[in-house]
Amino acid sequence: MIIVMEPMATEEDIQRVVRKMESLDFKIILNRGDVMTVVAAIGDKKLIDPSSLASMEGVREIKLIQEPFKLASRESQKADTVIDLGFGVRIGGNNPPVIMAGPCSVEDNKDGLLKTAHAVKAAGAKVLRGGAFKPRTSPYDFQGLEELGLKYLAEAREKTGLLVATEVMDSQDVDLVADYADIVQIGARNMQNFKLLKAVGKINKPVILKRGAAATVREFLLAAEHIMHNGNSNVILCERGIMGVDTHFTRNTLDLLAVPVIKKYSHLPVIIDPSHGTGRRYLIAPASKAALVIGANGLMIEVHHDPDNAYSDGAQSLTIEQFNTMMQELKELENVIYKTQTTK
Amino acid sequence: MIIVMEPMATEEDIQRVVRKMESLDFKIILNRGDVMTVVAAIGDKKLIDPSSLASMEGVREIKLIQEPFKLASRESQKADTVIDLGFGVRIGGNNPPVIMAGPCSVEDNKDGLLKTAHAVKAAGAKVLRGGAFKPRTSPYDFQGLEELGLKYLAEAREKTGLLVATEVMDSQDVDLVADYADIVQIGARNMQNFKLLKAVGKINKPVILKRGAAATVREFLLAAEHIMHNGNSNVILCERGIMGVDTHFTRNTLDLLAVPVIKKYSHLPVIIDPSHGTGRRYLIAPASKAALVIGANGLMIEVHHDPDNAYSDGAQSLTIEQFNTMMQELKELENVIYKTQTTK
Amino acid sequence: MIIVMEPMATEEDIQRVVRKMESLDFKIILNRGDVMTVVAAIGDKKLIDPSSLASMEGVREIKLIQEPFKLASRESQKADTVIDLGFGVRIGGNNPPVIMAGPCSVEDNKDGLLKTAHAVKAAGAKVLRGGAFKPRTSPYDFQGLEELGLKYLAEAREKTGLLVATEVMDSQDVDLVADYADIVQIGARNMQNFKLLKAVGKINKPVILKRGAAATVREFLLAAEHIMHNGNSNVILCERGIMGVDTHFTRNTLDLLAVPVIKKYSHLPVIIDPSHGTGRRYLIAPASKAALVIGANGLMIEVHHDPDNAYSDGAQSLTIEQFNTMMQELKELENVIYKTQTTK
Amino acid sequence: MIIVMEPMATEEDIQRVVRKMESLDFKIILNRGDVMTVVAAIGDKKLIDPSSLASMEGVREIKLIQEPFKLASRESQKADTVIDLGFGVRIGGNNPPVIMAGPCSVEDNKDGLLKTAHAVKAAGAKVLRGGAFKPRTSPYDFQGLEELGLKYLAEAREKTGLLVATEVMDSQDVDLVADYADIVQIGARNMQNFKLLKAVGKINKPVILKRGAAATVREFLLAAEHIMHNGNSNVILCERGIMGVDTHFTRNTLDLLAVPVIKKYSHLPVIIDPSHGTGRRYLIAPASKAALVIGANGLMIEVHHDPDNAYSDGAQSLTIEQFNTMMQELKELENVIYKTQTTK
Repeated sequence: MIIVMEPMATEEDIQRVVRKMESLDFKIILNRGDVMTVVAAIGDKKLIDPSSLASMEGVREIKLIQEPFKLASRESQKADTVIDLGFGVRIGGNNPPVIMAGPCSVEDNKDGLLKTAHAVKAAGAKVLRGGAFKPRTSPYDFQGLEELGLKYLAEAREKTGLLVATEVMDSQDVDLVADYADIVQIGARNMQNFKLLKAVGKINKPVILKRGAAATVREFLLAAEHIMHNGNSNVILCERGIMGVDTHFTRNTLDLLAVPVIKKYSHLPVIIDPSHGTGRRYLIAPASKAALVIGANGLMIEVHHDPDNAYSDGAQSLTIEQFNTMMQELKELENVIYKTQTTK
Repeated sequence: MIIVMEPMATEEDIQRVVRKMESLDFKIILNRGDVMTVVAAIGDKKLIDPSSLASMEGVREIKLIQEPFKLASRESQKADTVIDLGFGVRIGGNNPPVIMAGPCSVEDNKDGLLKTAHAVKAAGAKVLRGGAFKPRTSPYDFQGLEELGLKYLAEAREKTGLLVATEVMDSQDVDLVADYADIVQIGARNMQNFKLLKAVGKINKPVILKRGAAATVREFLLAAEHIMHNGNSNVILCERGIMGVDTHFTRNTLDLLAVPVIKKYSHLPVIIDPSHGTGRRYLIAPASKAALVIGANGLMIEVHHDPDNAYSDGAQSLTIEQFNTMMQELKELENVIYKTQTTK
Repeated sequence: MIIVMEPMATEEDIQRVVRKMESLDFKIILNRGDVMTVVAAIGDKKLIDPSSLASMEGVREIKLIQEPFKLASRESQKADTVIDLGFGVRIGGNNPPVIMAGPCSVEDNKDGLLKTAHAVKAAGAKVLRGGAFKPRTSPYDFQGLEELGLKYLAEAREKTGLLVATEVMDSQDVDLVADYADIVQIGARNMQNFKLLKAVGKINKPVILKRGAAATVREFLLAAEHIMHNGNSNVILCERGIMGVDTHFTRNTLDLLAVPVIKKYSHLPVIIDPSHGTGRRYLIAPASKAALVIGANGLMIEVHHDPDNAYSDGAQSLTIEQFNTMMQELKELENVIYKTQTTK
Repeated sequence: MIIVMEPMATEEDIQRVVRKMESLDFKIILNRGDVMTVVAAIGDKKLIDPSSLASMEGVREIKLIQEPFKLASRESQKADTVIDLGFGVRIGGNNPPVIMAGPCSVEDNKDGLLKTAHAVKAAGAKVLRGGAFKPRTSPYDFQGLEELGLKYLAEAREKTGLLVATEVMDSQDVDLVADYADIVQIGARNMQNFKLLKAVGKINKPVILKRGAAATVREFLLAAEHIMHNGNSNVILCERGIMGVDTHFTRNTLDLLAVPVIKKYSHLPVIIDPSHGTGRRYLIAPASKAALVIGANGLMIEVHHDPDNAYSDGAQSLTIEQFNTMMQELKELENVIYKTQTTK
């Protein structure tokens, strides 16, 4: 930890900080510059909240040296995490990208869901996505079929052999959702719902954790750390668009570079959700191709058998035909990707 | 609702949209411009998800005319909401600003809490704030005393006559927290935890709803709408800093203008939290004065009897002495504020 | 133009707006909703500043329907613009991506520049980039060799057959830079330096216009419109990173999706600058591959013969060896890209 | 300067950095932690571009300790800068806030300008603002009267005794504008137009420098440093709204807290422009009051004799009557502000 003192800090201010850090078993190195003094304290960040130091007289700023996430960090595990999702599907490392596809919401029309499921399976998807519990900005929008939706998803799994990924929004529903789903998903708006992170940390199903729209990579990895710290290390990180500059032409800014950035600092698999990330149907295919080329371990795509009548997110859902076309293109890319993948 | 068609949309595309909107009982007015056609659909937004329209062939964009929040809107209630917090303290409308103060976290040292409580009461605060359940970015930071913290807060109320405001993080804890607290608080990271919003919508205690760091005013008011739609109309909105441009000199950007903006569009009371909003102790007093002048109905301030040893947020906590000084200055401002308040 | 009236607007307020718009030769359609009235005015935006309308009594908001850029818009020209850069190199449309490479700054060591130029030419670059005039955040950083740097660049062109692209920072230097350069570049910080845009609008050299870090796509295309409106339609748009959420792990957020977004709304070629866009050397190759896959017409890459001793931007410059490796990978990608390019 | 090494950096990587820094006359202190090594280099940042260090093998990150601005820093000058604007008006330090008011653009109607000028003078303004050169996002908007506008402003000064502040957009116009104006203004979009900063650094008129919408405080102060480094230390900093989260209800987010933040790190006067900062007329008065309370040294307000027919920015311009009312309120505030101003 680096403690930068104010230019006007007194010698007594400096010594007070040194004494406090020494009392906490930090080793201290004092760097006295022309303008200000810097106290380097070597030891373990866990012992002290940087904010209480920052409140001391004469302290200007605290700079952390070591990233605060540990279990999720590349330092703690050099090899990529590979997660077995079931049915022989593995995600992470050098495994081929896992395509997850399906409607935004599970709707009353079960036949529509089954139609979509059969179609995405035929096109090469391995996981059926679909929301039974729906986080909606407005209370007047469709809130999801809840347990009935979970039953529909389970039936689709029976009939297609697809794995099921679906969102859980509340700690009280974790067991229910984990009973039906193969993969439990935490939405972007709940990325820092710490009680929910704790609850999914205690189940033995893989978790897809979506990045909050305003979350830094550090905050994202710390959210994963909450899950891992509670016992579940099967975390799949999902970038789905962040707050950007332009909200007129796209819903969010898809941060594709987050894939190689996260892979440098963490061993966890990273997938991309181009549907929420862009909010526009014509951008899904280009974004998906770029995601695979940049190293994503999977994609999560909204597909609906009839988007014009979808209960939610129709504007960003592909039709079955569009999804088929895109999957063809992705397959052509895959071979060349494997050849050009830089070995670090 | 305004539906902007693509410049290359065909007549058939346009007619398909018209038929769909008419089938939903909207009244249609077609505006054909030189470059593109605009379909104005007059009726109630509740009936249709704009996103499914946006997916139709030839549609470029949907523009909402009416704000999607209703119960929270100034149109639904012209007069300011005034909430009775208990002990004769009322917030909103022309009532004097309500000062809420106390430590970031309730800590093991109960005497410290009581010392702070007596001091802030003496200085003019009406509400004691303090976290028993703590949302923490890192799982290695102090997570709060939970029910024990609630008991300490209740004891402080007994001894000081202060009302108690404290955060609830999970739907499972709502009843517990509501048993001890006079005002229940939803943190910024949970602003779109919709199950939690629903749960606090069903209790009969006032709710402080903090604005998420990346939430627009519309999303903020829609979050309030979730609570009101579930039956609890005693919502106090709290601005506590948004994502801004500078993260080096301040933790967040305190959006003070949100106060008059929200008051134009909603009747709910609005308070400011300058402690989280700035993250720096030296900014608390200037921010608090500006907040009162700009029309805030209250302030939420972190005060600690010994910030250098606080479990959390020491850098942004005032000492008791600093709080006393600031309260003096705020009192001098109050008189002039009432004289200059523009009558709209 | 859509004029949304306040819910409390009077009939007189509405009629005043109608009269004003009619006096400006707009055709008016009045949509009276339950809560508020909307005035649709059909005609040409050029005639009126929306802001003066917005100031009228009872007006809540103005919504533009048609994009304000014209010459740059896809509506004005359906086919992609193809620009002849010289030496038989063409950019835009279905031409292969044009690679521009070279050091951030032209430095005193001319031999280093020539070494880099020969190397990038051998690896397949068509354009040498390098700054003679350098915009630097601090006045204490290296400000560029100015005309001497231009001479070095011209000499490198002589010796390698590469085209030269270099930045102009001030309207007074436009003629000088255009004398030496084949392509004139406007930096991100000058994207809205309107006098400079006007000046490069009057020369007959192609212009690379970099997107400002906080510029929306609409503002970006309006900046191009300034150049085109002054007579120069050879504008190449360059995305180079926008303000995002994370400033710790990357310098900017590279908005790769801007490529297909811009191509939908404009006919101009779009290139990507992954060096400034990421600020980290290990991200250049993944970003470049993704850029080509997503449809970029070119790349602008910082390459330095000795990055550890570069005068500027060493951290984001590739070595010559790294550039060679990347170019190999890009070539393998190119074939498959052409096969999978969606035909819209 | 703190150089953080990668956890996997070799001893040779570390020694290479140490040798390089020692060769540049830095004093080195090595801090070897459990996970990574930190090299603290004590000396003067001017000697080296941090980016070239960051490119060295094994280096993860460079952290600057000392702020890179010098002349603008509070360390270089403890006392507030006070600038004599002419006609006995002084800005900065304990001088009363200077009110600058006038139309966004100087328009053809000279009588309108004179009417506004007389009115704002009577209400207490000391400076007439008005644009003769107008930076406009679209080339189709009114671009200003240029020299004719300057003549009108000079005539208004003759007739009212107001000082004149007006914008210069290009280095070629600096002498012309300085001939007519008492205060020269750099717009937000030109905050990093370094040639223009250099040019105004060479005149002997005070400069108002507006903060770019995406500029950090550090970048803002470095832009001031460019002016000061070229010889002109009479710089007035103006906050006018930054990119925020909400673009629906306000044009920008007015960063009022920037006033006390800047005053901590710099001695320069700071003013607020609530007109551009909010873009909405009903927010000007609340923002202005908050600005004075938070310590602003002045305000820059758009006032127009007939905003419904203004050539630009009508929606955010006050009428003369509204300005008069606001000035009354500000005067009542002033007395109490002086009493409560915290003495640091």
